[in-house]
Amino acid sequence: MASRRPLLRLFSHSRSPLGSPLSCPRATAAVSRTGRRFLSARSASRASSATPAPNRTAHLAWATTALGALVSASLAYKMAIEEPLKLDTLAERDQQLKKAQGVTDVSPMRLRMEKFAKEQQKAIVQALEEVDGTRFRVDEWQRKEGGGGITCVLQDGKVFEKAGVGVSVVYGTLPKPAILKMRANHKNIADENNIPDSLEFFAAGISLIVHPKNPMAPTVHLNYRYFETANPDGSSGAWWFGGGCDLTPSYLFEEDAVQFHRSLKDVCDKHDPGYYPRFKKWCDEYFYNKHRAEARGIGGIFFDDLDERVADREKLFAFAQDCLKSFVPTYVPIVHRRKDMPFTEKQKEWQQIRRGKYVEFNLVHDRGTAFGLNTPGARVESILMSLPLTATWKYMYEPEPGSEEAKLVDVLQHPREWV
Amino acid sequence: MASRRPLLRLFSHSRSPLGSPLSCPRATAAVSRTGRRFLSARSASRASSATPAPNRTAHLAWATTALGALVSASLAYKMAIEEPLKLDTLAERDQQLKKAQGVTDVSPMRLRMEKFAKEQQKAIVQALEEVDGTRFRVDEWQRKEGGGGITCVLQDGKVFEKAGVGVSVVYGTLPKPAILKMRANHKNIADENNIPDSLEFFAAGISLIVHPKNPMAPTVHLNYRYFETANPDGSSGAWWFGGGCDLTPSYLFEEDAVQFHRSLKDVCDKHDPGYYPRFKKWCDEYFYNKHRAEARGIGGIFFDDLDERVADREKLFAFAQDCLKSFVPTYVPIVHRRKDMPFTEKQKEWQQIRRGKYVEFNLVHDRGTAFGLNTPGARVESILMSLPLTATWKYMYEPEPGSEEAKLVDVLQHPREWV
Repeated sequence: MASRRPLLRLFSHSRSPLGSPLSCPRATAAVSRTGRRFLSARSASRASSATPAPNRTAHLAWATTALGALVSASLAYKMAIEEPLKLDTLAERDQQLKKAQGVTDVSPMRLRMEKFAKEQQKAIVQALEEVDGTRFRVDEWQRKEGGGGITCVLQDGKVFEKAGVGVSVVYGTLPKPAILKMRANHKNIADENNIPDSLEFFAAGISLIVHPKNPMAPTVHLNYRYFETANPDGSSGAWWFGGGCDLTPSYLFEEDAVQFHRSLKDVCDKHDPGYYPRFKKWCDEYFYNKHRAEARGIGGIFFDDLDERVADREKLFAFAQDCLKSFVPTYVPIVHRRKDMPFTEKQKEWQQIRRGKYVEFNLVHDRGTAFGLNTPGARVESILMSLPLTATWKYMYEPEPGSEEAKLVDVLQHPREWV
Repeated sequence: MASRRPLLRLFSHSRSPLGSPLSCPRATAAVSRTGRRFLSARSASRASSATPAPNRTAHLAWATTALGALVSASLAYKMAIEEPLKLDTLAERDQQLKKAQGVTDVSPMRLRMEKFAKEQQKAIVQALEEVDGTRFRVDEWQRKEGGGGITCVLQDGKVFEKAGVGVSVVYGTLPKPAILKMRANHKNIADENNIPDSLEFFAAGISLIVHPKNPMAPTVHLNYRYFETANPDGSSGAWWFGGGCDLTPSYLFEEDAVQFHRSLKDVCDKHDPGYYPRFKKWCDEYFYNKHRAEARGIGGIFFDDLDERVADREKLFAFAQDCLKSFVPTYVPIVHRRKDMPFTEKQKEWQQIRRGKYVEFNLVHDRGTAFGLNTPGARVESILMSLPLTATWKYMYEPEPGSEEAKLVDVLQHPREWV
C-alpha cells in the first residue's frame, strides 16, 4: 500500500496547490473542490541544489524533472516571520513582485508561465479524476534555495493504472561552463567578449504521464516548459520554450493515431504551418528506443529552444498555451473509446511487455530523467512518477507474424505520417 | 508466450554450446544431457561492431554485455567451406590454435578463460535446473567480426522467476583514444613514446543473474571476466581480470548474508587476506543506487583491473576460478532454505517494488548495461536478461517503521560488515 507519509510536512499559511484557500496556517491537509488534498514538502536537508543545464539536453531536464523552486506564498510567509526579506535573487524579486501585484498579462513571462502551468495542472487533474472516479494524491514540495513543485499522482484507479501531473518551478545559477555551452543555441545569453562567471536562471514546466489499465487505451505523455536567464543587472536575458506530447499505444487504433496527430497539427497550424512537420519529425527522433531500433510510441510533437529566432515571446507563449489546452479534449475522448473494451490475459501481458520498453526508454535514453536522477537531492519520486505501476520483461518475446502485436511493432519501426 | 524464433539460425557442424556433440551439421537444435537445447545466432546484419573500452567503466562492459565474438567451431567450419582461412587477426590465430592443439594448461590465457567460463556456465545451468526442475533455453549467437556468445535463460520456472547465465567472448580493435585512456590504469598497454593507432583486444566473461519467485529467496548476480590486448607484433600485451558476486534480498536473513559473505571471504583469504576487505568495499560502492541513496543489495565482492601489480596471471586466474566455482555451493543452499517459505501477498508486492529498484540500478547506473545498450548491433536480449520478469513502481511507497521491509532498507542505507 502506498504510504501517505511524506518525509516532512511543512505547514504553511498559503493557498492549497489547487487554489483553495486555507484558513488555518497549521493545517496538515487542504480540501479542494476535487477532494482531499495533501500538502507536503521535502526536508531542507534533502532539497536539491540547482545545477546548470549544459545544453539542449539539460534544457529539457529542468522541466521534466522535479528539481524546481516553487516560490510559493508559503515561502514568503516563512521568510516574513523568520528572517528579513532580502531581494538579492531573482527568486526573491519574483516573489516580492507576485505579492505586490499578483500575476497579470504584463507580469514577467516567468510568473505567467508558472501561473498557467498550475492552472492547467488543476484542470487536467480534475478532468482525469472525472474519467476515473478516483482522486489524485497531491504533494507540494519545496527547496530551501527557493523552489519546489506540485506533484499529483493517481495510482491503481478504476481507469488509470498510474497518472502523474507535475509542475516544477526552478530558480538557480548557471556557472560559466554551462553558459558557454548554452551559447551554442542561444547567442544572446551573454556577450561573446564578456561571459560572466555565473548567471541566474528560471525554469518552469508541467509534465504529465498517464498509463491506463485497459491495454486498448494508450499511454500519453506531455511536457511544456519555459526557460529564462537573468542578465547580471537583473534584466531578462535569453529565453526559450520547449515541450511536446506523444502517444504510446499497446494496440494500434489508426482512428486514435489520426485524431491525436490531427489535433496537434491543428494547434500547430494555427500558429505556423511549418511547426507540425518539423515537430512531428523531432518527436519521432527523440522518443526512440535506439537499442530496440523502434520508437517508444506513435509520436506526436516535440520541440525545444524556441526563441526569438522562431517567433516573439508572446506568440510562442500563446503556442505553448494552445498545445497544453488541447490535451484534455484530445486524449480524454480516446480513453473513453478504449477504457471499457474487452481484452484477454494475453493482451494484458503484451501491454506489460510494452510497459517494460517504456521503462527502458525513460531510464536509459530520456535525458531529463537521467539528468534529474543524477542531480544530488532531486525529488526522485516526482521524477519517477513517469514509470508504470507494473512492467514485464520476457526474454526473446516476439509477436506472432501478422498479429495485432506485430502490427504495432511494425509502426514503431517505421514511423508513419498520420495526417 | 516467449517465441523461440531467433532472427536467424545459423546451423553449424559444431559442438553444442554445452558440449554435447552434434552428429548432424544441419541440426536446428541440440539435445544435451540436461534437455532440449536451442542453437541460434543473430543475423550478420545485426551483428555488433566491437568498439573500444575507454576505461575501467568499459572494461566491465566487455563481459557484462553480450557484444562478444564467440569464435566457435561453427565459425571455423563456415570459414573452411566458404572462404580461405586467413590468419590476419587475433581471433583467427586463436581459432587456428584451438583447432590444432585444443586448450590445455599451456594455452594462452584467452583460450583457458573462455574454456573455463563455458565449463562453469554448463555446471551452473545444470545446478539451477536441478533446483527448479525446469530447463534453460540455450541460444548460441555469433557476429561476423568473429565473436558471439551463449545465452542461457530459464523463465517463469517453479523456483526461479528468471535466471540467466551468459558467456561472451569478444575479439575487437581498440582505437588510439581508447588506448590512451586505458593507459591510466595499465601503463604496459603501449609505450608512452610509441602509442599505436590501434590494438587488437580480447575479452571473455561469464555473467549470471537469478531472480527467485519466493520473496524470501534473494536475487544474486555474478560476473567474472578477462581482458587482454595484443601488441602490434601479435604478442600478448596488457591483461587484467575483473568480476564479483553480490546478493540482493527483499527480506533480510542475517544467516544468509553472513553465509554469503563468509563464503566469499574464504575464497578471497585463500589467495590474499587483503582481497576481501578491499573488494567488499568496492562492491558496496559500485552497486549503489545513488538516486535512492541506498545500496542495490547487501553486497558481496567486486574488483577490476587486477593485473601483474596485484599478482601474477596464473595466481589471478586461480583466484577468479575459485570465485566462480564457489557460486553453486554458496547460493544453492540459500535458495533451498528460502524457496518454499510461506509468504503473503504484501510480501510479494514488496519484492516487486525491490525488483523495480533493481531495474533502476541496471538501467540507470550499471556501466556495463549502458555501454552495451548504446553499442550499435548489441544483442539486447542477452544484455537485458538481467531484468526481472516483473517489477512494480508505487509512488511514495515507504515501509512501516520497524517492519521487516524497513529493516532491509536500513541495511541498504547503512552497509554492514557481515564477517
